[in-house]
Amino acid sequence: MGDELTHVDKQGHVGMVDVGSKQETGRKAVVRSVVRLASSTMHMLMKQALPKGDVLVTAKLAGIMAAKKTGELIPLCHPLFLSYVDVRFDVQQDENRIVVEAEARTTAATGVEMEALVAAQTACMTIYDMCKAVQRDIVIEDCRLVHKSGGRSGTYQA
Amino acid sequence: MGDELTHVDKQGHVGMVDVGSKQETGRKAVVRSVVRLASSTMHMLMKQALPKGDVLVTAKLAGIMAAKKTGELIPLCHPLFLSYVDVRFDVQQDENRIVVEAEARTTAATGVEMEALVAAQTACMTIYDMCKAVQRDIVIEDCRLVHKSGGRSGTYQA
Amino acid sequence: MGDELTHVDKQGHVGMVDVGSKQETGRKAVVRSVVRLASSTMHMLMKQALPKGDVLVTAKLAGIMAAKKTGELIPLCHPLFLSYVDVRFDVQQDENRIVVEAEARTTAATGVEMEALVAAQTACMTIYDMCKAVQRDIVIEDCRLVHKSGGRSGTYQA
Amino acid sequence: MGDELTHVDKQGHVGMVDVGSKQETGRKAVVRSVVRLASSTMHMLMKQALPKGDVLVTAKLAGIMAAKKTGELIPLCHPLFLSYVDVRFDVQQDENRIVVEAEARTTAATGVEMEALVAAQTACMTIYDMCKAVQRDIVIEDCRLVHKSGGRSGTYQA
Amino acid sequence: MGDELTHVDKQGHVGMVDVGSKQETGRKAVVRSVVRLASSTMHMLMKQALPKGDVLVTAKLAGIMAAKKTGELIPLCHPLFLSYVDVRFDVQQDENRIVVEAEARTTAATGVEMEALVAAQTACMTIYDMCKAVQRDIVIEDCRLVHKSGGRSGTYQA
Amino acid sequence: MGDELTHVDKQGHVGMVDVGSKQETGRKAVVRSVVRLASSTMHMLMKQALPKGDVLVTAKLAGIMAAKKTGELIPLCHPLFLSYVDVRFDVQQDENRIVVEAEARTTAATGVEMEALVAAQTACMTIYDMCKAVQRDIVIEDCRLVHKSGGRSGTYQA
Repeated sequence: MGDELTHVDKQGHVGMVDVGSKQETGRKAVVRSVVRLASSTMHMLMKQALPKGDVLVTAKLAGIMAAKKTGELIPLCHPLFLSYVDVRFDVQQDENRIVVEAEARTTAATGVEMEALVAAQTACMTIYDMCKAVQRDIVIEDCRLVHKSGGRSGTYQA
Repeated sequence: MGDELTHVDKQGHVGMVDVGSKQETGRKAVVRSVVRLASSTMHMLMKQALPKGDVLVTAKLAGIMAAKKTGELIPLCHPLFLSYVDVRFDVQQDENRIVVEAEARTTAATGVEMEALVAAQTACMTIYDMCKAVQRDIVIEDCRLVHKSGGRSGTYQA
Repeated sequence: MGDELTHVDKQGHVGMVDVGSKQETGRKAVVRSVVRLASSTMHMLMKQALPKGDVLVTAKLAGIMAAKKTGELIPLCHPLFLSYVDVRFDVQQDENRIVVEAEARTTAATGVEMEALVAAQTACMTIYDMCKAVQRDIVIEDCRLVHKSGGRSGTYQA
Repeated sequence: MGDELTHVDKQGHVGMVDVGSKQETGRKAVVRSVVRLASSTMHMLMKQALPKGDVLVTAKLAGIMAAKKTGELIPLCHPLFLSYVDVRFDVQQDENRIVVEAEARTTAATGVEMEALVAAQTACMTIYDMCKAVQRDIVIEDCRLVHKSGGRSGTYQA
Repeated sequence: MGDELTHVDKQGHVGMVDVGSKQETGRKAVVRSVVRLASSTMHMLMKQALPKGDVLVTAKLAGIMAAKKTGELIPLCHPLFLSYVDVRFDVQQDENRIVVEAEARTTAATGVEMEALVAAQTACMTIYDMCKAVQRDIVIEDCRLVHKSGGRSGTYQA
Repeated sequence: MGDELTHVDKQGHVGMVDVGSKQETGRKAVVRSVVRLASSTMHMLMKQALPKGDVLVTAKLAGIMAAKKTGELIPLCHPLFLSYVDVRFDVQQDENRIVVEAEARTTAATGVEMEALVAAQTACMTIYDMCKAVQRDIVIEDCRLVHKSGGRSGTYQA
């Protein structure tokens, strides 16, 4: 039956990669994303005057918790153990931007880019949620991998 | 207190198996299940004319994603890392049947039969969902383990 | 942009049905599925001698809890409130079969067939899990809708 | 005790908005986000030559499924019923961009911006996941609300 | 078949209550629970000197997010919409106790005691997690319903 | 950018511990918690006369299943594999108390106290849910760690 199954699968095919033979090594990934706010929103955020309260700590916890759900959100991602997740913020008041940097680490047979990406974007979406009562045109932009190390492909630094 | 606890537990007892001393080895399981459709439904499925769209790719992704939730769905199952999950289809148009075959692989202290079973049955239920607007008497049948290897008990082939 | 989006969507299209204009009414669905066991397994089940303990109560709770996750498991299903879920068993010892019957009820704009189906099949998979240590060729079969009422399409009785 | 509790709460305060007195009306939101790919990646995507398979259908289903998890991902979001979620793509090959547009609809006491945002960004992250084996500098950018209607605040069109 | 099913069900029976005929009204519940700490731990908590950081805001967000998962955690609970969840703290430094008060509100056919209970206990467990590196004999105690209103049974005030 | 990020993070800081360099060893934790009932409720529980059915088996399964969700509920907890979870009861009828004891075991780089705690408290909350129709002043109390072994810090026995 294998052959027919393979054949049918060619129409509209999707598939997980088998990581059974990949090496379990320490792996790390860092993703950066940016939230652009109006200056009035930035002002309220810095004064902790937004209606839902402290934006950054909520975004940080949301990002960390979402990283643990990566395998649930991204269909072809492998579930994996995370030894560390962090979400950090660089609030650039003069430019009305918050740079969100998420880092994920593991010892596993597959990388943690997606975990860092989910953490960064969920933190950004939480900032959006905490600010949306006072501003409708918030933009989340420039989300990209900035560092990846461990595994066969070596270190990548953007 | 241990004794009393054990005693009470004898009434209506249920319990997880301790896999702490089992061997971490490569393990694999394959489960097969069948969806029986009316010929008119099968015809619409093949023409991609069903109201919710492409049945097989949706069923395949649903099966893969559900396998990752096995420990959440089956009360006494151990959560585990999966190195690979696949769902394949053999569309037997003449017999108005779709044979769904799900495969799960891991390196762990416990087998992956339940993960393959959850993948196969969720793929079948998704086929049901995608077709139910045009047919009410769809049947899901003949779901069984067809292969299991790795671990102490050796290889099983149905 | 709408047009181009629609166009692209035609390749590999899938989509949720919009139930925004459907009527909120009382709705009910009943699904039946069957687990076929060896007589020795059935004997152990009836004596509560299986290693993981009481099979039916575990399967019942697993089915009820899974029904609440239907929207998570089936990609194009709507999440909905459930006013009632039940899973019942007819243990046919002479025929070495357990008939599993799941019922779901709601007051909503969409039906509860999928919730009853998920409850029935998850209960069957849990029976499989509780018995698999003593039998490898368990079969889950003959799963079908037996009753559906409420909503525009009227009552269906198989 | 209420007073002291309120007082303590002022330090590091966060809080959900009470929507108990808001009106249940039809509500809709549309969010747009963009994935920027290398031309070689775009080429492989169009030829369905990427290792994990069909990118757009996987991203679409991931977006729809993630929208249903919005209340789980965004800490202060209300869980709500969704009557419709869609994710659409405008593949702009000449500019090596995929514009992702997500729409969410409900009849509820609170808006569905966050559901549309989660759908759009999860679809983008899934495109990233499906393409990351062949390109490391994929960018997700320009994510913003483009339409919102229903509820007290009237219609917003970007 | 109904009769046999009912009969079998009497052995090891469990069951959800059918709330289909209950009234949809505004409902509210408040639960209080207490975490007892050593004075040295309390001192570190107040100085924000604990290794995992700000205890109360993390506990508050954990409680709010857990309330939304009540139907997933408590097997026979109905999933429901929540219009409001809050978690408040009364830090009683002299007595080395933190009183945690959780409130849940809804408009539904069933009460929200379990949602308030899950929020309060998850907030307490999170306080435990944030402090456990410096103290092993933390106690969570005296968890009880303090207020319940809405629904047929009238207002309860402890 | 690292420095600025670190700086900002000092305001409202929270963070996961990096367990990447901790030892993978066998670890075990036992937590005990108590549910105090009225004598009439205890009487109904022992006679299995409560409206939702068999309390202890439901509470046991709920506790085991919740332990597997610990990383989802407790924001800064690491997700981990569990080799064993158990929940046991000591029904002290004369004192109208049920002592709930939960045990979790793993081979991992981090301890399983939180998994045992979540199992114990969720079992207690489920007992509360099964009994609340007949009693409103149920108390959950005296929840504490009673045993912890494995890992660098040695064995703890309360």
